[in-house]
Amino acid sequence: MDIKAYLREKKELVDVFLKEYFAPNFVPAVLKESITYSLFAGGKRIRPILCLAACEACDGDSEDILPFASSIELIHTYSLIHDDLPAMDNDDLRRGKPTNHKVFGEGMAILAGDGLLTEAFFIMANSLSNKNIKNTALIRAIKEVAFASGIYGMAGGQAQDLLSENSEPDKETLFFIHKHKTGALISCSLRAGAMLANCTKPALNAITRYGENIGLAFQIIDDILDIEGDTQELGKTTGSDERKKKMTYPALYGIEESKNKAKELISEALFSIKDFSNKAEPLRLREIAKYFLERKS
Amino acid sequence: MDIKAYLREKKELVDVFLKEYFAPNFVPAVLKESITYSLFAGGKRIRPILCLAACEACDGDSEDILPFASSIELIHTYSLIHDDLPAMDNDDLRRGKPTNHKVFGEGMAILAGDGLLTEAFFIMANSLSNKNIKNTALIRAIKEVAFASGIYGMAGGQAQDLLSENSEPDKETLFFIHKHKTGALISCSLRAGAMLANCTKPALNAITRYGENIGLAFQIIDDILDIEGDTQELGKTTGSDERKKKMTYPALYGIEESKNKAKELISEALFSIKDFSNKAEPLRLREIAKYFLERKS
Repeated sequence: MDIKAYLREKKELVDVFLKEYFAPNFVPAVLKESITYSLFAGGKRIRPILCLAACEACDGDSEDILPFASSIELIHTYSLIHDDLPAMDNDDLRRGKPTNHKVFGEGMAILAGDGLLTEAFFIMANSLSNKNIKNTALIRAIKEVAFASGIYGMAGGQAQDLLSENSEPDKETLFFIHKHKTGALISCSLRAGAMLANCTKPALNAITRYGENIGLAFQIIDDILDIEGDTQELGKTTGSDERKKKMTYPALYGIEESKNKAKELISEALFSIKDFSNKAEPLRLREIAKYFLERKS
Repeated sequence: MDIKAYLREKKELVDVFLKEYFAPNFVPAVLKESITYSLFAGGKRIRPILCLAACEACDGDSEDILPFASSIELIHTYSLIHDDLPAMDNDDLRRGKPTNHKVFGEGMAILAGDGLLTEAFFIMANSLSNKNIKNTALIRAIKEVAFASGIYGMAGGQAQDLLSENSEPDKETLFFIHKHKTGALISCSLRAGAMLANCTKPALNAITRYGENIGLAFQIIDDILDIEGDTQELGKTTGSDERKKKMTYPALYGIEESKNKAKELISEALFSIKDFSNKAEPLRLREIAKYFLERKS
């Protein structure tokens, strides 16, 4: 199986949906510019792809959930815009381009984030018009994403990250931040995809464990790439975590133990979905997990 | 009918729900402090009350939608926290107390807003557990609130307000800002309440016109109170709009014409719901509209 082709194909579908969705003009035009500037700044669309792949692994038709899956990218993008603000990480560059507030000003950047987050829920609820999606499953999936993005998930993780700036890293806090700030949205993307496919309870449990493991692995690999990665391949300068004294896995455990931990988590993820059939769809989740481990950007 | 007693009773119900909802601790504790600081800073709970009243006017049981109605107050509160930020209106005081970012810092204030907005959608979707609410109605109501709060509603209005700072006021822009920044959320509170009561299409149309009219009237009266109001009754210093060169109705049309416009809008609102029955429930909407016109704070 060519997993890279699969990822490319799904990314393209998400990109096309998002481009069309944000094609109409709205007032004020600057708000649209600010939103689309960050939404189309080269994101890999990992969360939507995981949502689509989980749906397929549970015998769902991913075409039906393309809008829902894509809406998660709006939430991811909002979180990046707000994280980059001077009052947060104070970053001037993101994916090699000036950050949103550097181009549009802080006020507009905050509103672009607010608008993206709100619009995500509109897109989700708008799936009501698709008769192939059950209303109960849709509401459960919306609840899932809201929970994972909010105070018990991503927003909570970012708040803890903000409070931990310049403090001595400890393992418990690091784990909390990773699990909530990055893990929650990755995990919920998979769970929502499975729910929208009306999966069984054991399948949802398996997808959940898979998601928790690859979510954490994803963040550790990100931290490793920030040290060992190639600036050109990454599209950003390496070593930024160390410069900012960020609490990371490699900083706390060293690079070798971090690599072992990532491998272990990916093995766990693969083990979680071992009872899934050997049809092409579930196999993709396995390939994605392995691909995460080898990614260079 | 004692409309003040009705407003007090509903406010109390909303307050009790919100207090209980935010009773459990979550991590980090500062995020909870920041959220509850603004959520319990003395809001009048007007939007939730309108949602409950519209539900009752359409023969629905407002007890069922108390969580949904209350969640709109989270969205209102998030908008106030973000509006007060230095990059926006840069306000130090709100309802006589230091603004959220003055107490918790800008980063935490942004996250408190993000958390409130996200949690609102969780509470809405969580109404799935109430079997008296139809799933289709629930999703339509969520869609309604997301639309009214987002780029085509409140966030769009705030973005336009931000862009219009220090510019010469013109009528079209003023109307756009009022309609989107304030009107949209007031109107959608009413519409969502009616939808959740499974109202008829003519009833929804009537509620919509009612909402559009009282939404604009509410803002004009707010602007008038900022000039003529009593500092003590309002809990804030008057004249702040003029000092900040805010685009307001009185600034553009003068105080007398603004008062006439508010009266006219309230009459329009009353006319919109003239076909509703004369039972107690719809009558309350009429009393609320009249009360708006006479409010002193």
